[in-house]
Parts: sequence; C-alpha cells; structure tokens
Amino acid sequence: MNFPSKLIENAVNEISRLPGIGKKTALRLALHLLKQKESVTEELTLALNALRKDVNYCQSCHNISDAKICSICASGRRDKSIICVVEDIPDVLAIENTAQYNGLYHVLGGVISPIQGIGPDDLKIESLLHRIMSASESEKVEEVILALPATMEGDTTSFFITRRLKEYGVKVSTIARGIPIGGELEYTDEITLGRSILTRVNYSAD
Amino acid sequence: MNFPSKLIENAVNEISRLPGIGKKTALRLALHLLKQKESVTEELTLALNALRKDVNYCQSCHNISDAKICSICASGRRDKSIICVVEDIPDVLAIENTAQYNGLYHVLGGVISPIQGIGPDDLKIESLLHRIMSASESEKVEEVILALPATMEGDTTSFFITRRLKEYGVKVSTIARGIPIGGELEYTDEITLGRSILTRVNYSAD
Repeated sequence: MNFPSKLIENAVNEISRLPGIGKKTALRLALHLLKQKESVTEELTLALNALRKDVNYCQSCHNISDAKICSICASGRRDKSIICVVEDIPDVLAIENTAQYNGLYHVLGGVISPIQGIGPDDLKIESLLHRIMSASESEKVEEVILALPATMEGDTTSFFITRRLKEYGVKVSTIARGIPIGGELEYTDEITLGRSILTRVNYSAD
Repeated sequence: MNFPSKLIENAVNEISRLPGIGKKTALRLALHLLKQKESVTEELTLALNALRKDVNYCQSCHNISDAKICSICASGRRDKSIICVVEDIPDVLAIENTAQYNGLYHVLGGVISPIQGIGPDDLKIESLLHRIMSASESEKVEEVILALPATMEGDTTSFFITRRLKEYGVKVSTIARGIPIGGELEYTDEITLGRSILTRVNYSAD
C-alpha cells in the first residue's frame, strides 16, 4: 500500500505488528482514531504505556498483579492446599469465570515446545516446586491440578511436571477431557470421542 | 471479566473501544504487548499520538497529507482535468492500488445518510464546487467521476452532487457496476444481475 502520509504509514505499520491485525485492519483502526476526539487516542496510549511500564507479577503464582502478591494468593478465603497449574494468564481468568474453583494458581508462562525452543527452564516449574517445598505446615499443598492445553506440548509439560512432583508426595490430577457439554457425538472428532470411551467414568443416577 | 490488575483492566477497556475489537481480543493484544520489549509499546503509542496530533489534511482534496497540499494534488504528472469523488480515505488508497487512474481525488468524508444525521453540509461538497469553479483555465476540470458506494446512501449522494454540478458544465460519470471480474452468474445477487442486463454495453470482438 502507498500511504499518502508518513504519519499514517508509521501508525499502520506499528498497529499491524500486533497479532491477528493486518494492514487493512490497522488502517481502519488508525482512521477510526482520527475521527474520534484526541482524548480517545491519549487515553488509549496512556493505558498501554502504564500497563507495559508499571505491571507487576505475583511473586508466588506469576499472575499479573498490582501488588507483589496477587489478590488470589493473598486472599484468606482461598484453599491454599490446591494449586492449579495453567499455561498463561487468560487461563486464570477463564477458570475464575467458572466460579467452580477456590484454590490457588500457578502460571507457567508457556508450555514445553522443542519446536519453538521452549524448554522446562524457560517456564516457572522450579518456582512451583519451590512453592510446594517451602509451604508452611498449615498451608501445605495437598494437590496440584494440571490445567494445560490438550495438545502435544501441553501433554509433554504435564508429564514433565508430574515426574518432578513425584518426590513431594502431592496428589496430581488433570482436568477432565471428553465431549464438551452440549456437544453432539457425530460432530466430535474421533480422537476426543475415542478417548472419552476409554476414559469413561461411573454413572450414578442419584 | 474480573481482571487481576487495574492496569490490565484499563488497557483492555481502552483497546476494546476500537471498532471490531472485543474484550477477549483486547486482552490477547494487551498480553502480547506485555511479552514484547518495552520499545514495542513505546513505538506503537508514539506513532498513534503523532498521527492523531500532527495529522494534516490536503486543503484541496481533503485526503490525509503531510503537507498543506497532498502529493497527488501537487504532482505535475497527474491529469488535473479529472476529479474522482470518493467517500473516504481508504477509497483513495484502493483506487491508487489499481494503477488505472491518473487524475485527482476529492474525499467527501462520508455519504448523505438521513438515518445517521449526515446531510450534504456535513460533507465536502461545497469544497468540490469551489474547486471546480476556481480552477484556472489551464487546469480546468472537464470530468467528475463519482466513485461512491453502491448503496442507497451512495446513490443519494451521487444524485445530489450530479444536480449541483449541472450548472458548471462538467461531464459527470460513475464507476461501472455489474458482475465482478471472475464472478459466476449463478452466485451473483438478483439486483446486480438484473441491472447488469439493463445496463449492458456494446461488445466488440476486436
């Protein structure tokens, strides 16, 4: 594209570096900002700069936090004997939105992926072991739930963590996999359906 | 969504004010910026602020421009006897990309839309008439091409401009409408197909 102005060209180039945004969408967003009041752009850029410069991560679970310890880890109402291990921050939000879990989290920051050059040392796995080891008697970790993606990389990471956790005597569980609620059998892929038969659970009609 | 940090909540709220971007996409973009170097966010926000604050519009055609007169209007290689009237800036880029047009442009900044409360006075129509009227003898405007969207609003605007142009003795044309190149008849909507039969053109097999 030939842009009529250097300013719009720069803006479009910068916006289109964001994931999933191409040049056309970037141009649409830039022209949208031009049609709005100057304050809209100001507030957007202030919020982005503040986020990038002042963001903190919880020293315990590595979730985003405004304080050194995040509100979940610091809460007195959470069950500190369970830690749910997730790949990244959006997973914490997703599980929190279910309102079905009251334990703590541990954000790995990724999953093991030899293709992308991500090894165990690039993730917060040692930090998880340290958390379990150094927990006081009253806040002892009884169970680690692995809530990692159902991919080769996720499975590899689950396997690795499970092996490392063996010596600590904590129970290790993984979130259930199978047909989604509301899912039709005929539209479910063969691997999920096959696994869901192999890993069937007892049914109670109570 | 409950965010673990005020900073990320603010950023997500600001990003999701952009058109076509919801909260989930906004969160993905914000987390992406967090994983990049600080300079990525800095360059993005600098480019956006520079665009919004320092942008200029061409005084003649109202396209975005770095100078008072845009590079198209100022070019000596352009045919100044033809003006192509478009709705907005992306249309100029689209026509320029075809490399089929060598005249000037006139950006209306919208089309007449009573539903959205946009009347002729909100558009750069008077400015177009002024341009035609005040052109010097050597740069006389011979033809105005209406390249407005093929919608009710676009047609209304074309009709309005054509009526206003009557007294200036310029030729008024409109871009061709019909079956797109590569289009199959059976998948073309009835209105387009019907119109393309009514407005058929002479065929020459030379």
